[in-house]
Amino acid sequence: MENNYYNRLKEICITKNSYLCIGLDFDLDKMKVSNVNDLDSLESFIKDVIDSTIDVCSVYKPNFAFYEKYGPSGMQLLENIVSHINKRSIVIADAKRGDIGNTSKNYADSIFSYYNFDAITISPYMGSDAITPFIEDPSKGVYLLCLTSNKSAVDFQYKFSDGSHLYEDVAKLALSLNGSNNIGLVVGATKQESMRKIREIGPSLTWLVPGIGAQGGDLKNSVSISNANQGIGIINVSRGIIYAGEQSIDQIRDAAINYNGQINNILGNHE
Amino acid sequence: MENNYYNRLKEICITKNSYLCIGLDFDLDKMKVSNVNDLDSLESFIKDVIDSTIDVCSVYKPNFAFYEKYGPSGMQLLENIVSHINKRSIVIADAKRGDIGNTSKNYADSIFSYYNFDAITISPYMGSDAITPFIEDPSKGVYLLCLTSNKSAVDFQYKFSDGSHLYEDVAKLALSLNGSNNIGLVVGATKQESMRKIREIGPSLTWLVPGIGAQGGDLKNSVSISNANQGIGIINVSRGIIYAGEQSIDQIRDAAINYNGQINNILGNHE
Repeated sequence: MENNYYNRLKEICITKNSYLCIGLDFDLDKMKVSNVNDLDSLESFIKDVIDSTIDVCSVYKPNFAFYEKYGPSGMQLLENIVSHINKRSIVIADAKRGDIGNTSKNYADSIFSYYNFDAITISPYMGSDAITPFIEDPSKGVYLLCLTSNKSAVDFQYKFSDGSHLYEDVAKLALSLNGSNNIGLVVGATKQESMRKIREIGPSLTWLVPGIGAQGGDLKNSVSISNANQGIGIINVSRGIIYAGEQSIDQIRDAAINYNGQINNILGNHE
Repeated sequence: MENNYYNRLKEICITKNSYLCIGLDFDLDKMKVSNVNDLDSLESFIKDVIDSTIDVCSVYKPNFAFYEKYGPSGMQLLENIVSHINKRSIVIADAKRGDIGNTSKNYADSIFSYYNFDAITISPYMGSDAITPFIEDPSKGVYLLCLTSNKSAVDFQYKFSDGSHLYEDVAKLALSLNGSNNIGLVVGATKQESMRKIREIGPSLTWLVPGIGAQGGDLKNSVSISNANQGIGIINVSRGIIYAGEQSIDQIRDAAINYNGQINNILGNHE
């Protein structure tokens, strides 16, 4: 089990004393620093952000949308970023993929073999056979969208039958597929009561928790619930860190240290 | 409404007398022709396939997984393919994207502005605010995953409450968002009774119908139900055409003509 995803994640979190994920969702059109204005300067900037936060950040999570929009050059940038992190932290491909089995196999090849990500986010709508190709390698992790942090999450995720909401059904499926301890859930920070239900269903499932910062999720409850029992809850912050202050590298590092400190205070993990 | 997606699709279907979509899901590891063994030779081959079928094929649909697995070079290939089709047919990005609003906006920029696709497939799990950024431009189309053709579709899509299955809820949401007549549904060919229910919910919604050929869907019922009332049902065939026979261009063209002929026979559109 040495090379198992969950074990590797846990070891990194303990070593760095960090349950923080930084969302690397940079947008060239929204940079505050004027000298970052093309993909080359953006790449240098992102590498600086990584190097200045790596000691307090266990997980990085680039969302593919922010790279795909630049075409093949954006994908090259993504490849260079994963390579730059070079296993110093976990890197999650926030790609929300999912397709019929044979196709998911090709997506898994892309994310894990070509780009060398450690984990991926998956949309559950197509059911288990769209998920299983991603979990075959126990060293690679999968985070299934369970309860998302956007307003329209209520459109379908709260559909209720047989005593269970759809998001609970997703958590149950994840649990049933977790034989290699490499499936987790995406659980938005915005709904505390539902978070508690999900943690009850799968006490040891790893969570990725978006919705903190710009989206207004409650940090204290999110940290506590997601890390209850044997679970690991990784708290993602994107804009709150990478656009901190005037976006100087120092301000970004300070924001990362600050968020990680807040998380550790809540967990009682004082250095 | 001249530049509306639905109108453009309809015009092309009528002009070409074709309701056929060819799935451009080539896999270098599974080619039958020995001289196609790298991305350059694959690009030439795909262009030949397109040029030899364009008169009988209204829609092409590359699935992103088969391109993403080659990294940035695969995305360059995809870009070249869309450019080669050059508006002679509709091109659907089978990418099954979907994310929170701001992120979906970036995905829409990627698919529609950078790559210049005409339409995209979307996963509905996150609800309406993950969909709306894709439908803002009425000249671009969206196909929402409704009922998929894989076995595990039953895991979540048949969840039933308030007299409605989840896949029916998705069809209803699509209908409610279809003010610009540019949302359609992905409806697998494998479940006839459910197909009828979906056609009743949205009599005029455009469908993209996978599951014919390798996946064993029934062509006759799929064509009839998907094209009932004012609806347009586009029938996708991937492996059944692009891997036809020994994979010569002639055999691929013949398979496309054959499928299109079968579809037209069922529709009663004889030339």
